[in-house]
Amino acid sequence: MAKKKIITARRSILCANDRQAAANTRLFKKLDLTTINVMASPGAGKTNLLVHLLKALSSHGSVGVIEGDVASSIDAEHIAALGYPVTQINTDGGCHLNASDIAAALKELNLAGPGFLFIENIGNLICPAAFDLGERVRLVLASVPEGDDKPRKYPGIFMKADVVVVNKLDTLAAFDFDRAAFIAGVRAVNPAAPILEVSCRTGQGLDALADWLLALR
Amino acid sequence: MAKKKIITARRSILCANDRQAAANTRLFKKLDLTTINVMASPGAGKTNLLVHLLKALSSHGSVGVIEGDVASSIDAEHIAALGYPVTQINTDGGCHLNASDIAAALKELNLAGPGFLFIENIGNLICPAAFDLGERVRLVLASVPEGDDKPRKYPGIFMKADVVVVNKLDTLAAFDFDRAAFIAGVRAVNPAAPILEVSCRTGQGLDALADWLLALR
Repeated sequence: MAKKKIITARRSILCANDRQAAANTRLFKKLDLTTINVMASPGAGKTNLLVHLLKALSSHGSVGVIEGDVASSIDAEHIAALGYPVTQINTDGGCHLNASDIAAALKELNLAGPGFLFIENIGNLICPAAFDLGERVRLVLASVPEGDDKPRKYPGIFMKADVVVVNKLDTLAAFDFDRAAFIAGVRAVNPAAPILEVSCRTGQGLDALADWLLALR
Repeated sequence: MAKKKIITARRSILCANDRQAAANTRLFKKLDLTTINVMASPGAGKTNLLVHLLKALSSHGSVGVIEGDVASSIDAEHIAALGYPVTQINTDGGCHLNASDIAAALKELNLAGPGFLFIENIGNLICPAAFDLGERVRLVLASVPEGDDKPRKYPGIFMKADVVVVNKLDTLAAFDFDRAAFIAGVRAVNPAAPILEVSCRTGQGLDALADWLLALR
């Protein structure tokens, strides 16, 4: 089948991105910030997850958020209203954040560690996987209503995950979601990443995820 | 905030795409195929919706599917097993179908009307909106678990929709989904497109959608 004409253009963009990502990594280390790139489909529950993790981790150091959206600032306003530092990036239709977005946002955020910086990437299971932001952790968030076949349909993003989180566990009864099939799908491309099940509605599993993040420091 | 560096490259790609899309439109007319570009997040239920519509419309003419995925052929195999003509496009990581993909797939599919051709686009609420395929109808499929804020967060795709369908209505009790807020979000960018509610699990609303499509012919 026809391949994308965009590949050549993307390659040079990716090289420039990798250089900026490496610079970001050095800056995150200097600032003593453990940075988590949160990637998911639209509506998987990224912002709700962040709100829980910010609360759980804020007693262990500084916390902050870089919030990516194609449009609107709904999520950033929600996080700011809870009192956490947040900087919004609007990509104006772009389907992923890139490393230079993060460098610019980090200047505005003015966050110093020791602590955690969360990056909420654009709601998309494809493009964000191709752009290193210099983060320490790639967290891929799936959710029960999306179906257990997502790792097989979007292998690129699950392949690169450092941790896979499955949200909306409280809705298992309403959907045909085969947990073993989901895990097998992840394992087909990613033999090692922890797979944690959570419910942002009931709180199930969120302490275990916060503990996993704390153990990285 | 930093704008995407990719914009210049995308512009020339979009011009070439528009020329091919216009050629596709002429071919669809010649073949007497009403073509529907189905766009949604991962896991919104595109394939299930297609299976219902193929069954409902197959007594009114020929039907067929061009199935787009970044990887795998799970959905195409499902549709083929039900006996409907289908051609798979794998974009190898690309985040949308383009008009030349469709031209190539149409040759393989070898479908003649009068009838309906469905195009299942890549699961993504961003990139597919920018690439005209020459289709008659842009159908944007949302679902209750994704939340009522999706039209405000991804306005580009809802703006261009000819019809908006909300799936998984049977799960309303399990989610905080405000139907009026969803409709207001669509209306903020799209004053005219019909908004139809369906459940592929219970069958609710699917006849109304099939009737709407039949009325186009």
